[in-house]
Amino acid sequence: MKARVHVMLKDGVLDPQGEAVRHALGSLGFLGVEAVRQGKVIELELSATDEAAAEVEVRAMCEKLLANTVIEKYTIEIG
Amino acid sequence: MKARVHVMLKDGVLDPQGEAVRHALGSLGFLGVEAVRQGKVIELELSATDEAAAEVEVRAMCEKLLANTVIEKYTIEIG
Repeated sequence: MKARVHVMLKDGVLDPQGEAVRHALGSLGFLGVEAVRQGKVIELELSATDEAAAEVEVRAMCEKLLANTVIEKYTIEIG
Repeated sequence: MKARVHVMLKDGVLDPQGEAVRHALGSLGFLGVEAVRQGKVIELELSATDEAAAEVEVRAMCEKLLANTVIEKYTIEIG
């Protein structure tokens, strides 16, 4: 079973990487870019076959390793 | 208008970051993880209002800056 996790900085947390991308896009002539946020996407291939159990496991992975929940939020897609 | 870009290493390109995550998850007791690929997600807030034009612009951003198309693939979601 596949799972995909998105980890983004929480709203309100400064995102210097996204800001650098926005600036670089402006320099390249892309003037219609108002804001950029950059995050991580993690694709997992799991041996679990039960969707609900997989989501519980992936949530535990996020809390323990994949996201820094002080400053980051995450979303999980299963399947 | 919002756009979301996923940038992942192409299949077959070694992903040491994903491999490190897989290893770390195993060390934490998550034994059902068979493979991990890690990539970037970039969320853009665009001033464009036309969906087709926005996609063309974001595709140009990917080719010029956001992805290294030699080793990375990207997908674009608009709206």
